[in-house]
Amino acid sequence: MTAQAPLFNRLALIGVGLIGSSIARAAKVQGLVGSIVATARSPATRRRVAELGLADQVVETNAAAVEGADLVIVCVPVGACGEVAKEIADKLRPGAIISDVGSVKGSVLRDMSRYIPPSVHFVPAHPVAGTEFSGPDAGFAELFVNRWCILTPPENADESAVSKLSTFWTSLGANVAVMSAEHHDLVLAITSHLPHLIAYTIVGTADELRQVTRSEVLQFSAGGFRDFTRIAASDPTMWRDVFLANKDAVLEVLGRFNEDISALTRAIRNGDGQTLFDHFARTRAIRKGIVQMGQDVPDFGRPHPGLPQPKLPRPYASSDD
Amino acid sequence: MTAQAPLFNRLALIGVGLIGSSIARAAKVQGLVGSIVATARSPATRRRVAELGLADQVVETNAAAVEGADLVIVCVPVGACGEVAKEIADKLRPGAIISDVGSVKGSVLRDMSRYIPPSVHFVPAHPVAGTEFSGPDAGFAELFVNRWCILTPPENADESAVSKLSTFWTSLGANVAVMSAEHHDLVLAITSHLPHLIAYTIVGTADELRQVTRSEVLQFSAGGFRDFTRIAASDPTMWRDVFLANKDAVLEVLGRFNEDISALTRAIRNGDGQTLFDHFARTRAIRKGIVQMGQDVPDFGRPHPGLPQPKLPRPYASSDD
Repeated sequence: MTAQAPLFNRLALIGVGLIGSSIARAAKVQGLVGSIVATARSPATRRRVAELGLADQVVETNAAAVEGADLVIVCVPVGACGEVAKEIADKLRPGAIISDVGSVKGSVLRDMSRYIPPSVHFVPAHPVAGTEFSGPDAGFAELFVNRWCILTPPENADESAVSKLSTFWTSLGANVAVMSAEHHDLVLAITSHLPHLIAYTIVGTADELRQVTRSEVLQFSAGGFRDFTRIAASDPTMWRDVFLANKDAVLEVLGRFNEDISALTRAIRNGDGQTLFDHFARTRAIRKGIVQMGQDVPDFGRPHPGLPQPKLPRPYASSDD
Repeated sequence: MTAQAPLFNRLALIGVGLIGSSIARAAKVQGLVGSIVATARSPATRRRVAELGLADQVVETNAAAVEGADLVIVCVPVGACGEVAKEIADKLRPGAIISDVGSVKGSVLRDMSRYIPPSVHFVPAHPVAGTEFSGPDAGFAELFVNRWCILTPPENADESAVSKLSTFWTSLGANVAVMSAEHHDLVLAITSHLPHLIAYTIVGTADELRQVTRSEVLQFSAGGFRDFTRIAASDPTMWRDVFLANKDAVLEVLGRFNEDISALTRAIRNGDGQTLFDHFARTRAIRKGIVQMGQDVPDFGRPHPGLPQPKLPRPYASSDD
């Protein structure tokens, strides 16, 4: 990318939630695209996108959005990606790059590939970034800074298309990794999907107990529960689709997790302090590894002053909903 | 408390880790005590406490520490509280208040009460505050600001002693609640102990899988796993003791949690999207309740500018270990 010529002439965004609106903001600020056309399923979202000035053009249908675009990014829940691909297949410009932002890659690759013509370069992507907020107002230009974006191109993918999409994400501030869709889904099952499922579970469990202890569960939530509620406040539709789409890998890691918690439960029941101590000391050491790898940013995806950041304005601050 | 006379003449701190050193710093800054005498089990910790200037006097034994003190706070893992009470029982000044900071109250009440003479006022306490760091360097004076401190006095407790200890904690910036030890242990089992156990478990599960996927689990930890590692980095000795001491309540909530995660696992296996969506939408609503109750401070216990705080210096910043 140079200051003179944008990387892409026309970016089409299908879906403008937290991720889509953050891409729009960052791409515009960094001068990466000549123009942005956006669409969303609901009229209310389209109106809001126009009000916020997130796109140069807001259109009503997915098919209309992709006409003439040399980069199309589908930013909808993974369960809806196949349907979108079907709707836009005929209108995609030959030579265009089409990508997505889904948290599961195997199912997206399968669902979208069947519709995308060979003249178009399909390169699935997953920016590993987010907050507990959703919708077009929740996005901000720095969301991807210092985050990973994982590309999972099919085996026969065009190398220059992968390289160009990689440059796009790098320019948004992300670090890019490339791996197979299958491998991605296993790694994310343990680093993201299982933790979210646990968070959803424990918040529900606490809520049932709340019937007994009234408001105290909420009142004293600073002692650990609070961190779980933040994760468990993420978008329900997105996460429903993640668990349905990555079923096999999630069930695999759930099985391992259940074995491990059974062992700790048994240690508690038996008063086996040594087993507990050894386990806790081991997890503390793992934590050290994470700190050393620079993934420790105590902001749940929000920008903070500790990160090296490009000079971006942040006009639309997210707020608690 | 007035500016002229401190609330207590002589505060004895037994154990000077994250909590003990934070009490020392805050009490000194707020002028709550005439002098502070501190002790710790390890010579290295005692040296460090002296170097940091956390106490007016650092002594070698617990018995020596409590002589002449009108407030004694035992800041050691809950499993060690009974032994400490035994060591100091004979040296406690009649009329003094003795308290602790343990995360479990039933076992502490039982273990310490048997040694404390009737002339001394025993008022157990639990400041619901902490970070993932430990040791005398990790403390800071604002740790308790806007946090809850739960007092669990025995039924026959002296009211003026409870009131005086309550004033002490309020002066450190905490909100004080009073309840029975048994009730405290159930509430904390769900808000704090279960979340920590889950965090410890999932970090260990991920580590086993790491043998397969090498460093990727750590590399992509921003997607949910990171928040778990932060909790799971807490002090292993403290948490071992918590689970041994609060066994019954923890096993009770673990049983409920297992039922709930089994239901969600079944929904994933069956592809039952409606059940998943309904559950996730419900937990998001619970999250709203927590935000409204003002317990949402995205700092894992660290001070941040959003909180109303007394003007305290913060000379000893904690750093990642």
